[in-house]
Amino acid sequence: MTNIKATNITWHEGHVNRQEREKLLDQKGALIWMTGLSGSGKSTIAYTLEHALVQRGHLCYVLDGDNIRHGLNKNLGFSAEDRTENIRRIGEVGKLFVDAGLITITAFISPYRADRAIAGQTVGEDSYFEVFCDAPLAVCEERDPKGLYKKARAGEIKGFTGIDDPYEAPEKPELVIDTSKMSPQEATIALVEMLEKAGKISALGE
Amino acid sequence: MTNIKATNITWHEGHVNRQEREKLLDQKGALIWMTGLSGSGKSTIAYTLEHALVQRGHLCYVLDGDNIRHGLNKNLGFSAEDRTENIRRIGEVGKLFVDAGLITITAFISPYRADRAIAGQTVGEDSYFEVFCDAPLAVCEERDPKGLYKKARAGEIKGFTGIDDPYEAPEKPELVIDTSKMSPQEATIALVEMLEKAGKISALGE
Repeated sequence: MTNIKATNITWHEGHVNRQEREKLLDQKGALIWMTGLSGSGKSTIAYTLEHALVQRGHLCYVLDGDNIRHGLNKNLGFSAEDRTENIRRIGEVGKLFVDAGLITITAFISPYRADRAIAGQTVGEDSYFEVFCDAPLAVCEERDPKGLYKKARAGEIKGFTGIDDPYEAPEKPELVIDTSKMSPQEATIALVEMLEKAGKISALGE
Repeated sequence: MTNIKATNITWHEGHVNRQEREKLLDQKGALIWMTGLSGSGKSTIAYTLEHALVQRGHLCYVLDGDNIRHGLNKNLGFSAEDRTENIRRIGEVGKLFVDAGLITITAFISPYRADRAIAGQTVGEDSYFEVFCDAPLAVCEERDPKGLYKKARAGEIKGFTGIDDPYEAPEKPELVIDTSKMSPQEATIALVEMLEKAGKISALGE
């Protein structure tokens, strides 16, 4: 049985605020928005960072095709309109996660500047970190982890980013990671430093 | 500067799993789905529970009209189709929050059984707790916190739940709270006990 007494419980009309949850978690909510071509290393870096942060006791969550395209956004296709709505919804979910105090990482190609700008505005400048996974197209195509470039070159997929649909590189990214030169581990160190410098997490030993 | 060394960071191909985050948080992810008429006390109970859980050191988040209808679901109206999509998206976001380890509370009228069933299936039976805020229509209408019943009776709002649109009561709710007889504090105690019994949080003193 619970030991709570009614006298300890206060009636509330509004949400617990973000600061209270951040205090509980000993971290500040942030959205790390990874953008780049298919095969540029977004997911690998996101997962590696997620594991490193959880190991340090930080609550972290990755939004990517695995959990978004088969869930929340399963009713969206790949038309220009649906791509925009896809990114809009991810930005809105990111905002909720950041408000909940989580360090949230998104790993989507998100090729259009205007769509990313909306996500950034939704979450708010202080909480939004755009990270450009910048690997040359030739390297991404050589990796081709999902065999998508091959299909795009064969014309089996239309409107594939980098082949017959544009990728608009960030103009002022918080960080650029060239994954043809940098390992996921090195990228993770850079991202952890970025979060420390922004005051989202404390440096170790502090 | 960070003290992390590359040798401490392991390259990962997949998400941190739910259990690892639950261990970090010392709680288990759950979705408490509050359903009931407008004015039945869903939001007040949700906020009171949220504050009580955070006070006990648990990470908790409320999804309600405030943060969903003006954000993720701002492109939805109140047609039958849009209402279903509204609840579907909330269920999907709930699933993500539960996977992130949070005790998540939703406070939406959610009048249709079929829509709630989809949310329950999305999140999974072990994590889904349907809570029926069951206050008589007359009491809800008397409270009329947003003045909506008055507008519905005047014909200014069409398809308002309880007036000219049906509310389908849960058949097997986890908990029924008659807020005409029970205070938000008493309801919160019942909900905390429910979470303790389900092993989602530890009883105090354990």
